[in-house]
Amino acid sequence: MEDMEEFEYQPRSVKDLFIEMKNIAELMVDLAYTSILFGDKEIAEEVVDLEERMDLLNYQMTLHAVLAARNVKEAEKVTSILQMANAIEDISNAAGDLAKMVLEGLELHPVIKEAILESEEVIAKIVVSPDSVLVGKTLGELDLATNTGVWVIAVRRGRRWIFGPDKDFKIKPHDVLIGRGTHTSVEHLKEIARGVIRVVGNERA
Amino acid sequence: MEDMEEFEYQPRSVKDLFIEMKNIAELMVDLAYTSILFGDKEIAEEVVDLEERMDLLNYQMTLHAVLAARNVKEAEKVTSILQMANAIEDISNAAGDLAKMVLEGLELHPVIKEAILESEEVIAKIVVSPDSVLVGKTLGELDLATNTGVWVIAVRRGRRWIFGPDKDFKIKPHDVLIGRGTHTSVEHLKEIARGVIRVVGNERA
Repeated sequence: MEDMEEFEYQPRSVKDLFIEMKNIAELMVDLAYTSILFGDKEIAEEVVDLEERMDLLNYQMTLHAVLAARNVKEAEKVTSILQMANAIEDISNAAGDLAKMVLEGLELHPVIKEAILESEEVIAKIVVSPDSVLVGKTLGELDLATNTGVWVIAVRRGRRWIFGPDKDFKIKPHDVLIGRGTHTSVEHLKEIARGVIRVVGNERA
Repeated sequence: MEDMEEFEYQPRSVKDLFIEMKNIAELMVDLAYTSILFGDKEIAEEVVDLEERMDLLNYQMTLHAVLAARNVKEAEKVTSILQMANAIEDISNAAGDLAKMVLEGLELHPVIKEAILESEEVIAKIVVSPDSVLVGKTLGELDLATNTGVWVIAVRRGRRWIFGPDKDFKIKPHDVLIGRGTHTSVEHLKEIARGVIRVVGNERA
């Protein structure tokens, strides 16, 4: 409902909608692999929810884009937006299909998890110890993607999941970060989270 | 041809094929956005070539997987592999659709490039100056994904493209790296490539 109101009274630009679609598609793929890796139905549910959000965004975006076309030249450009939006939605649907494998409780072949664990980009759980330098800092301050090469996709706090946490998200002791990065970068962040390494990037945290 | 021979006489494991499929799908999406961003038909051609490679890998993988199923239990597990392979192929097809927009010379709306430039993960060209610490080092030694948060998707050397360069790829002066990362990490790597920053990660390079 909130989204519909936003759409009615405060129309967002095609660009903003487009950026959100692209970011969500990337998050969905990451979360889909994560749900498979950990056999986690809650994460899989989130992917399916994001698929619905994606449909809504695509609908709003299409409406705005089509309204903007006033002549043949503009119509051609608008068509390029719609084509790209369709490709992004195809990616998000593929992520949804992956998540549904988890939701349907399909018995997964061990090769699947191995492939996710041995790709160039891997996914890992990183447990934050109370004496880690990460504690009390926001993701914006830490900028882990730049400083450690690890993208934080989701966070498990107690029984709650936070998906696609933003810059203002502040890390607490015992948070479990779900990160995507190289093997080395993930291992490095684990050492920081464990409290063994006391430095994030080039600065002392 | 080479692939077919490899397939005939040196069958690879389902896992290896699967990992290559996953890595290729990710590279294809990155390259597809890159081809759109720079309006580069050569990069778009590479995406289409990789789509063919993906078809071959999927065929080999399916054959191996199906042969491995000897009873109902195994058949269920094998089915999960085929479902995941299909999702990966859907992602690669979506990347192919994006690349075809470039190949067809469709007039692109400016919003498309803006969205690629303003997403959470951006793509950028990084020019290597002769006096940069990067020169003469391999991507394996530098591990830029870990040390700077930037993934090198492709390299332009003179008139030649190297797509998905591996660990043994050695950087030469005037190479143009195509990198994916955060805004900050890309800007940081640009400074290293320019020779302004003389350190990669925590170690003096």
